[in-house]
Amino acid sequence: MKSNLLKITALGAALSLAAVPAHAEVSGETAFIFNTLSFLMHGFLVMWMAAGFTMLEGGLVRTKNTSMQMLKNIALYSIAGIMYYLIGYNLMYMDVTGYIGSFSIWEAVDAGITADGFKEGDYSAGSDWFFQMVFVAATASIVSGAVAERVKMWPFLIFTTILTGIIYPIQGSWSWGGGWLSEAGFLDFAGSSIVHSVGGWAALTGAIIIGARKGKYGPDGQVRPIPGANLPLATLGTFILWMGWLGFNGGSQLAMGSAADVRDIGSIYINTNLAAAGGVVAAMAMTQMIYKKVDLTMALNGALAGLVSITAEPLAPTPGLAILIGAVGGVLVVFAVPALDKLKIDDVVGAISVHLVGGIWGTIAVVFSNADATIVAQLTGIIAIGAYTVVFSTIVWMVLKFTVGVRVSEEEEMDGLDKAELGLEAYPEFGHGSAKL
Amino acid sequence: MKSNLLKITALGAALSLAAVPAHAEVSGETAFIFNTLSFLMHGFLVMWMAAGFTMLEGGLVRTKNTSMQMLKNIALYSIAGIMYYLIGYNLMYMDVTGYIGSFSIWEAVDAGITADGFKEGDYSAGSDWFFQMVFVAATASIVSGAVAERVKMWPFLIFTTILTGIIYPIQGSWSWGGGWLSEAGFLDFAGSSIVHSVGGWAALTGAIIIGARKGKYGPDGQVRPIPGANLPLATLGTFILWMGWLGFNGGSQLAMGSAADVRDIGSIYINTNLAAAGGVVAAMAMTQMIYKKVDLTMALNGALAGLVSITAEPLAPTPGLAILIGAVGGVLVVFAVPALDKLKIDDVVGAISVHLVGGIWGTIAVVFSNADATIVAQLTGIIAIGAYTVVFSTIVWMVLKFTVGVRVSEEEEMDGLDKAELGLEAYPEFGHGSAKL
Amino acid sequence: MKSNLLKITALGAALSLAAVPAHAEVSGETAFIFNTLSFLMHGFLVMWMAAGFTMLEGGLVRTKNTSMQMLKNIALYSIAGIMYYLIGYNLMYMDVTGYIGSFSIWEAVDAGITADGFKEGDYSAGSDWFFQMVFVAATASIVSGAVAERVKMWPFLIFTTILTGIIYPIQGSWSWGGGWLSEAGFLDFAGSSIVHSVGGWAALTGAIIIGARKGKYGPDGQVRPIPGANLPLATLGTFILWMGWLGFNGGSQLAMGSAADVRDIGSIYINTNLAAAGGVVAAMAMTQMIYKKVDLTMALNGALAGLVSITAEPLAPTPGLAILIGAVGGVLVVFAVPALDKLKIDDVVGAISVHLVGGIWGTIAVVFSNADATIVAQLTGIIAIGAYTVVFSTIVWMVLKFTVGVRVSEEEEMDGLDKAELGLEAYPEFGHGSAKL
Repeated sequence: MKSNLLKITALGAALSLAAVPAHAEVSGETAFIFNTLSFLMHGFLVMWMAAGFTMLEGGLVRTKNTSMQMLKNIALYSIAGIMYYLIGYNLMYMDVTGYIGSFSIWEAVDAGITADGFKEGDYSAGSDWFFQMVFVAATASIVSGAVAERVKMWPFLIFTTILTGIIYPIQGSWSWGGGWLSEAGFLDFAGSSIVHSVGGWAALTGAIIIGARKGKYGPDGQVRPIPGANLPLATLGTFILWMGWLGFNGGSQLAMGSAADVRDIGSIYINTNLAAAGGVVAAMAMTQMIYKKVDLTMALNGALAGLVSITAEPLAPTPGLAILIGAVGGVLVVFAVPALDKLKIDDVVGAISVHLVGGIWGTIAVVFSNADATIVAQLTGIIAIGAYTVVFSTIVWMVLKFTVGVRVSEEEEMDGLDKAELGLEAYPEFGHGSAKL
Repeated sequence: MKSNLLKITALGAALSLAAVPAHAEVSGETAFIFNTLSFLMHGFLVMWMAAGFTMLEGGLVRTKNTSMQMLKNIALYSIAGIMYYLIGYNLMYMDVTGYIGSFSIWEAVDAGITADGFKEGDYSAGSDWFFQMVFVAATASIVSGAVAERVKMWPFLIFTTILTGIIYPIQGSWSWGGGWLSEAGFLDFAGSSIVHSVGGWAALTGAIIIGARKGKYGPDGQVRPIPGANLPLATLGTFILWMGWLGFNGGSQLAMGSAADVRDIGSIYINTNLAAAGGVVAAMAMTQMIYKKVDLTMALNGALAGLVSITAEPLAPTPGLAILIGAVGGVLVVFAVPALDKLKIDDVVGAISVHLVGGIWGTIAVVFSNADATIVAQLTGIIAIGAYTVVFSTIVWMVLKFTVGVRVSEEEEMDGLDKAELGLEAYPEFGHGSAKL
Repeated sequence: MKSNLLKITALGAALSLAAVPAHAEVSGETAFIFNTLSFLMHGFLVMWMAAGFTMLEGGLVRTKNTSMQMLKNIALYSIAGIMYYLIGYNLMYMDVTGYIGSFSIWEAVDAGITADGFKEGDYSAGSDWFFQMVFVAATASIVSGAVAERVKMWPFLIFTTILTGIIYPIQGSWSWGGGWLSEAGFLDFAGSSIVHSVGGWAALTGAIIIGARKGKYGPDGQVRPIPGANLPLATLGTFILWMGWLGFNGGSQLAMGSAADVRDIGSIYINTNLAAAGGVVAAMAMTQMIYKKVDLTMALNGALAGLVSITAEPLAPTPGLAILIGAVGGVLVVFAVPALDKLKIDDVVGAISVHLVGGIWGTIAVVFSNADATIVAQLTGIIAIGAYTVVFSTIVWMVLKFTVGVRVSEEEEMDGLDKAELGLEAYPEFGHGSAKL
């Protein structure tokens, strides 16, 4: 929390108009209400992203695995909330010593509501917890998309439990918790690295350790496309994420109790929206040029890559620069998806291309608009967070692999996870054209 | 409305931190804006729940009845709004004499906006009407899920008209309108009983009087599962309801114009979210233990049962208790669904198990965290509301049954309501595997 | 922007209660935050309408064209944002000379945040841009529905670029930009004409110039119904639009920094919601009377027609009048759809009936409740905007037709746009009952 204030101050110095009047006009309690409201309102938008990930992933898997994708997502969102309450939040924000916070259950302490009145920037501790909690869930959702269609349910949920309760919060303490990365000058406004690339790295290790889906890669290196079963659902998921991202980035201003803060939130909405737009247009143009046809799933992933790219610094860029940053994200995703396939890393929904590649790009791009950012500090953060997440995730995936196993049997994979692990179908009355792929 | 203030005061005494500073810091007009904004913002979240019920129910019926489920839900939301304007609101809140308000059309009177300035807790009358109106619609949505796939459309809509215009508002006047239940000490913060169990009781009487779907129960008492046609749609509906429930419970704080109020809304968001999470995890664990497979529809209903359970008291519990309350709701639903089937009560979407069983549990659970609640008062409310709703609903369903009829013909049921009553299909191009079930 | 203030003042005179206390209670900065927050919160609701249009249209086309409908909508939303930044906003609001603004890139200038403090009604320029931007996208979405299933993708997107960058903003400058229509007394609160009928006229010219889908009209004038492939998706889209419309109309109050303003937003929510409800009930009753069956797609279009109808004046009517205005919109759509078919104008989703017919009706209906409106001024606006949009759109569509072409080949239309232009299917595993229609 300390670091939140640090973040505000640091950015404030760089960005606020010289002429902003003193804060005194808004009473302390009124500012408290606005700040808290920002967490709550933007928090419910981020909560809504859980539905977005679910629909996106549910539309991009085959019918025989769709119910499982639904279940995993609603389960991981639930687990993330419980774990962040039991252990995660305090690991990330309570008495951070540089590399880690404290192991304890979160408790609401509203320092601001005292007989002494309110300090500047005060907000209710609970609203902050709620806002931070929905971020954790996003990290876990990224993993679930990449390893879909072959991972075992309970081992996946165990991984989720550790990811949301321990892996994510510890690295989060380094930056947002006020730890060593924060002191090193690493800047990541809303989490291109801290949220998205952590999910991306965990997804990458999972996809490699679990291995590709049967039949995805032919013996001679051919890549067999396995089309998603319900593209309107995937499109809906993308729009939900787009909407939710306004809360993800806007709420990360962490305050709304002054004219300067609410003005900044407006700028963040604009840049977030335009970066996504840039990602869509760039991905469309690239696929038209390369493949002579536009690819809807690439356009959707272009939007998401644009959003991830602007997340590390959604405030400082001009709208024009935001379009460019998003567009580069959209272009990167068009190249990253086939590149991963060449490496036989099977990412069902393109999550690694969007969240890891886009997250790295976005974290670097901070230097183009924020004078306080240095490329050294940004690379330090990218590498430290990446190395840590890869090592920790690998250990967890490996332990799971050699104990309970992480992958369903070949027969179960062929039949689909819905039948194997759930015993019900997503669309029992509809055709099953390519379900047996 | 009187009772709303009573409610605030009663809870305030029990829960607010001792050190909350006097309200004086926030000007009367600023508080008015915040209070009104809370109704509006949380109101649009609750409005969104209408889409949630529609998608949930639309995903859990068969394709041949899906368009009808869409139509019934958009129609009932429309009728609920019109009826609550014409008669319902004033029956519930205007000049309540203990057992009933007045028969008159609602008119906006903003007592707060006068030359005398604002009284504490003031808000615009219209924003309150909007917020209360979206609650009514939720009650009607509960019924539509339970009696799906065989009820006649127009008789169902007549029932909806009476439920939203008369049945719901009269019992609402007893508690939220400041009537006898309120005076008896009955506490139901956001409506576990007043909204959800009323819908549940009306659904129960409807399901019994209309009877089970053909083929649901075999001659020897076997239960034939009739799978829903589109589980991603049902999952989407659940997420929408989860999101909307933040508004349902959060807005029921009825004020946001002080630091204490907005802090309480934050606590409500946390508890609401964690109760749902507890319901998901508990339902998953139970179905794994009992059936050796996790059941997606049970996980969804677990989330909803968790939400219903925390609705009677989303503010007072600690987050840990909220998880437990929700988890018990999730467990109850896993047992209630087969129990109803044993009684041959055919509830298509599990609405009775979620909203009635969960609603009763939630209303009782108030005593665990709110010192002002007594088990006697809570049981009085549960029984009084239940007896009233069952009697009134039975009369209406029976009158409909013996006049216009409440059930389509056997042939129409076989063909599906979409063909029989609408003449169009929900998915005309998709397969029809089990539509003829 | 000038005109925004004019609008507030004009309506304020007619509508505000006599006893509203002076604004002085809310500090300038607090009002600034509220006003800006209104644009942001209502802006994200309107952004969400992009998903609503996408789902509505995606559910009403056939499976073979569904991916294309997804792509067009996410692309047009992206293009609209970029164009409105590059040229549209300033054309509409910057230095408007009566008939047009200036050709320049939008730049955020927060006049309100100065050392001099805040002027009444101040808000952040960026939040206003964001809110106005999402309106533009709605206009383009209307067109995409009408010309679906046969228009070529890139020419459609070129049309969108011109519509959102030039056509829409220029006419917008006449009224909301403070130009000649505003001076002539034309009143259109949230855009029945300025947004919806502009989209409707552009859709009408497009539908005529591009021509009907193959097989829609038989040689002897028969109309062949071509059912939409996914009615739950269309219903979801309608609910999304309904929710988003609360922001569309509510945010058009353009201020939330006083008790009177937030009270008015509450009235707008009520009227918007009830007009939609009136539209649903009226469309259901009409189709029951005329066709002896209720038509779900007509009920959905009834809701939307009700929403369009109330958009020109959502504040002044009583709730009862709002229901009536919406109901008339719902009735009109039931007659307009077959009337257009008689003229062999093929509008795939009923967009012209909803947005053009409803928009004209709504613009006229302002005179029933707003004493400042005159029928002459309203008709002047309707005719001027209509003539301008028809002429400009016709030129653009014609240039496209005779250069790059606007229509896919007969074979591509038969195979579906998804295969022809995208190379992927929306539902690759589901049946294809009538896809070859």
